[in-house]
Amino acid sequence: MAGSGFHRVKIHLTDGEELEIEVDESLSLLENLLRNGVLIDNLCGGRGLCGKCVVKIISGKTSPMTDQEKRWRKILGSDIRLSCQVRILSDAEIELKGVSRAIEGKILTWGLQEITELKPLTRSKKIRLRKPTLQDQKGDLERLLEAAGTRHYDPLIISELSRSMRKSDFEVYVIQRGEEILDVISAEGNAGRLFGVAVDIGTTTIVGYLYDLETGKNLAIESAYNGQIKFGEDVISRVDYARKSAENLRSLQGAVVNTINEIIEKLSEKARIEKHRIYDVVCAGNTTMLSLLLGNDCYYGSHAPYPPPFTSSVEVKARDLGIKINQRGYVKTVPSISAYVGGDIIADILASKLHKYPGKAALIDLGTNGEIVIKADDLLLSTSCAAGPALEGYGVKDGMRAVKGAIETVVIDEFGKSYYKVIGGGRPRGICGSGIIEAIAWMRIRGIIDGSGKLIEESSEKVVRGPEGLRFVIASAKESATGRDIAITQQDIRKIQLAKAAIYAALLTLSRISRIRLEELEKIFVAGAFGNYLDIFASQVLGMLPDIPREKFSFIGNGSVAGASLILLSRDAAEEAQRISKEVRSIELNTIKDFQEEFIKATHIPHMDKELFKNTLKAIESLR
Amino acid sequence: MAGSGFHRVKIHLTDGEELEIEVDESLSLLENLLRNGVLIDNLCGGRGLCGKCVVKIISGKTSPMTDQEKRWRKILGSDIRLSCQVRILSDAEIELKGVSRAIEGKILTWGLQEITELKPLTRSKKIRLRKPTLQDQKGDLERLLEAAGTRHYDPLIISELSRSMRKSDFEVYVIQRGEEILDVISAEGNAGRLFGVAVDIGTTTIVGYLYDLETGKNLAIESAYNGQIKFGEDVISRVDYARKSAENLRSLQGAVVNTINEIIEKLSEKARIEKHRIYDVVCAGNTTMLSLLLGNDCYYGSHAPYPPPFTSSVEVKARDLGIKINQRGYVKTVPSISAYVGGDIIADILASKLHKYPGKAALIDLGTNGEIVIKADDLLLSTSCAAGPALEGYGVKDGMRAVKGAIETVVIDEFGKSYYKVIGGGRPRGICGSGIIEAIAWMRIRGIIDGSGKLIEESSEKVVRGPEGLRFVIASAKESATGRDIAITQQDIRKIQLAKAAIYAALLTLSRISRIRLEELEKIFVAGAFGNYLDIFASQVLGMLPDIPREKFSFIGNGSVAGASLILLSRDAAEEAQRISKEVRSIELNTIKDFQEEFIKATHIPHMDKELFKNTLKAIESLR
Repeated sequence: MAGSGFHRVKIHLTDGEELEIEVDESLSLLENLLRNGVLIDNLCGGRGLCGKCVVKIISGKTSPMTDQEKRWRKILGSDIRLSCQVRILSDAEIELKGVSRAIEGKILTWGLQEITELKPLTRSKKIRLRKPTLQDQKGDLERLLEAAGTRHYDPLIISELSRSMRKSDFEVYVIQRGEEILDVISAEGNAGRLFGVAVDIGTTTIVGYLYDLETGKNLAIESAYNGQIKFGEDVISRVDYARKSAENLRSLQGAVVNTINEIIEKLSEKARIEKHRIYDVVCAGNTTMLSLLLGNDCYYGSHAPYPPPFTSSVEVKARDLGIKINQRGYVKTVPSISAYVGGDIIADILASKLHKYPGKAALIDLGTNGEIVIKADDLLLSTSCAAGPALEGYGVKDGMRAVKGAIETVVIDEFGKSYYKVIGGGRPRGICGSGIIEAIAWMRIRGIIDGSGKLIEESSEKVVRGPEGLRFVIASAKESATGRDIAITQQDIRKIQLAKAAIYAALLTLSRISRIRLEELEKIFVAGAFGNYLDIFASQVLGMLPDIPREKFSFIGNGSVAGASLILLSRDAAEEAQRISKEVRSIELNTIKDFQEEFIKATHIPHMDKELFKNTLKAIESLR
Repeated sequence: MAGSGFHRVKIHLTDGEELEIEVDESLSLLENLLRNGVLIDNLCGGRGLCGKCVVKIISGKTSPMTDQEKRWRKILGSDIRLSCQVRILSDAEIELKGVSRAIEGKILTWGLQEITELKPLTRSKKIRLRKPTLQDQKGDLERLLEAAGTRHYDPLIISELSRSMRKSDFEVYVIQRGEEILDVISAEGNAGRLFGVAVDIGTTTIVGYLYDLETGKNLAIESAYNGQIKFGEDVISRVDYARKSAENLRSLQGAVVNTINEIIEKLSEKARIEKHRIYDVVCAGNTTMLSLLLGNDCYYGSHAPYPPPFTSSVEVKARDLGIKINQRGYVKTVPSISAYVGGDIIADILASKLHKYPGKAALIDLGTNGEIVIKADDLLLSTSCAAGPALEGYGVKDGMRAVKGAIETVVIDEFGKSYYKVIGGGRPRGICGSGIIEAIAWMRIRGIIDGSGKLIEESSEKVVRGPEGLRFVIASAKESATGRDIAITQQDIRKIQLAKAAIYAALLTLSRISRIRLEELEKIFVAGAFGNYLDIFASQVLGMLPDIPREKFSFIGNGSVAGASLILLSRDAAEEAQRISKEVRSIELNTIKDFQEEFIKATHIPHMDKELFKNTLKAIESLR
């Protein structure tokens, strides 16, 4: 059908699904995609500026390469095209490379695609009990235990038991967690449904995923800033605060419990389920977060010789923590490795399968506590570093979480004008972590900041002086939803510099301890709350991710909550997490003498040692 | 030294202890005993009337038998003397037979003498932990579990764990219940002390015994009326009340929990111990009481086919019930047999060792719910009957618990004058169960009531007519502490008649089912809150206990709390209770057609069938 003006294009989406659309050869591929509801990211309005709308042409005739495309090929790979630049001239087959929200919700569950078998610890079983007679006066409890084939039960079931058994004529749903009976429900309607929640307790952000434990289906996702943040932005300041008094410790514990309860409340509202049908909560988090959840200040874990309060998977009744699910249900922690390498890393490894990766590979979890694992041969080495909450939009002047109204992706043109995309559309209210990273990277490309991170006042009219010093305006008061400028301040840039330096220096240090050069890594899994949307190129310009080819990076999204989800949904995964926790060796960066120096060198953008970011610097040049 | 006027007398006390005193041959033995602090019961001021101050002369010369003594010999045995009548004329050896309070406190723990080995489930162990180093960064919890050799712990220990370990330089007391670690206390002073409480949840009265779990020593005893009594005096009315609404059920559960908490509060004050050092509470009680404790109304247990909510030993965290001991401690129920034969009976059997008795024997637990067990050959048959709270002094006009100020023993002379003894001395405030039984028995002996229980107005000037009908005055307003008469009303007598009839009829019916005549019983264990002080003769006159020789009776006191104590103090006893619960067969009296008729015949005093109480009737005659 070449030359007819209309062609059929088969599209491979990023999540492995396929679809077919009809394209008009007189329009750009981007326009055709958007008209067909494939909402591929694009910021610059088709000017070939932002490098977001990337595709790969597998077969078919296309319009010739533009200068913009040639430029981006150097950065994004020699086989890509920009969909805003290319036109399709025959029937074709293409692959989307840029982030697409065509199938919303699915992208967020990356890392979960590998659940082959649903095997939750907590399950529902329909049982018909024999009715009591004068010859069989067995107790209701003993009748139940015999029929269920167990001796373990929560004694709180006794109060409702007799009535539940008779309400449905001795046919009941038994909710059992491992051996323990948690609930007995009369077998009426969908009474036997049961749910679980996987939680990532981040230092800054807490994320919860709600699952139907019978289908394994994710029903809702919610997140909130960790309520502890008002007592201290990083782990150390919270430990110090908790240490001061028993009351302080209780406040911290109460704050995390409250935040989890808020998330559970919102999850159950969103999915329209009853909270008392939730029987299981699996929490991943760093060692301090999990300790505070259980009311331990983790003080000794932050002082040599750094013994953590616990590393195993602790199971505690929801009622004992005040977590508002079914009161006979459980909260379980993901096992951890040490005071510095927590259950979040185990969850990340589980979700990424790093421990089974055949070659040399690394995992970077970008959070307030940045965590790094390197796998070389059979050795798994892990460490963590304090990055601070800035990468999650906290403590940055106009920062916010990656929720509706946040600028999540930004590109800046040669005139200093920003093009951005707002989550949920509409006017921006602030800027989230991924947006901040991209903004600073483009400020560096456009010369608005120099390599030391200093704002250059005369570089652009968007650099203005306010009461707190210089700042760079991304969205003016006229454009924003708040009636105030949305800007990046010099202080914001400093916070991001410290965060990214910590992460890069930790990776570099750990790779040296593992005797691996970064170029040798065949795969780098990137996890974190914003992992899905993180722009690799921007992260490299910033000097946060290492200067290695982009195809080696693999985003696993929030690996921590993904791993917690796997544990929630599969006993096998729970066992695997146990095994992983025995395999990983933990390194304390404070004990490594080169770390401080590497950290200082890494505060530059991208890095003081230009040799480490050769390709990135070349790309920056090419875009100017 | 005969004839010298002073002699040495060796005395065997009822609890097996011995002492020696010097006696003046010019005074009665009773006077000599009292002068030497041996406080043997006596009511009638040495007139040989009450038959309380009984002794047996093993060797030595004595004054000749008086008429009073000859009379009592027919009732109490041909080898007895009344200490108020006999004078000792040479060095002698005697045995006290009457109840003595010489060694106060000890008597109340009857039934516990047989604890041969202290082996509590909960124990304290001092452990020295290896200190963490950079080479050994194990978690505090994992360090503890390894040293204690267990994998089980209450997750609530985590909050205090790290600090407790370091407070005493890694030497700690570990409080372990079976496999589970309940607490970790820094090893300072007597930090490792731990206590337990055995509780009998009676329908009317709740009794608690506090023990030191390391020495097995009983530290305090407390009791209180069951707070549920305001919702219904017997089991059935409480079940009905609970059934009406979930709120009612919660009120009943709350009431028993509150009463237990009050008792625990008083116990720990009395013994000057900290409540949080109590880790274990073992509760005996009938099936309904134990069900209400766990929040189940036991409704189906009171309707055919009478399945109870549970019969096994249920263990529940104190915090889950709101019992105010250490919040990681446990409350455990004694196993039961059926809806009608509860954990109190298992406890009674355990305390009396009835199940091991070589011959034919019976056990009667005199409570609001009367319980009977008969052992014939290898068969243990058990039943229960509703006696009501009158035997415990509840619902009787001037009734009260057996505490300070209660008339606990009474004798009435031929002129209708009462002689009585008040618990703790002083003026009486009311009359407790044992006093009521003796009063009514003596009213029958003195012809103040007839065989049908009717008060005879003209029989004595102490029978007076008040607004609520006739009543018999035991202590006049002038004598009492309240300024009002303490009297037994016609209604009181009716309540006691119903109570005692239920018990006797149940015993008789069960003996028939067992194909045993009452005379064949070699032993009758009598348990109950007032079991220690119950006068056998008075109980036989009343027709509550059967007309068989007094030496066949053996009082075990509150067998229910004694059995619970055994379970608290010994894992072997706990296992034995399990075995007993499998051995006993439960009989539902409602299903036995003769029971109603036997009940009616037994309401007479002593009984409509004079043949059944031949000896008792003869004794009544001889005392007139």
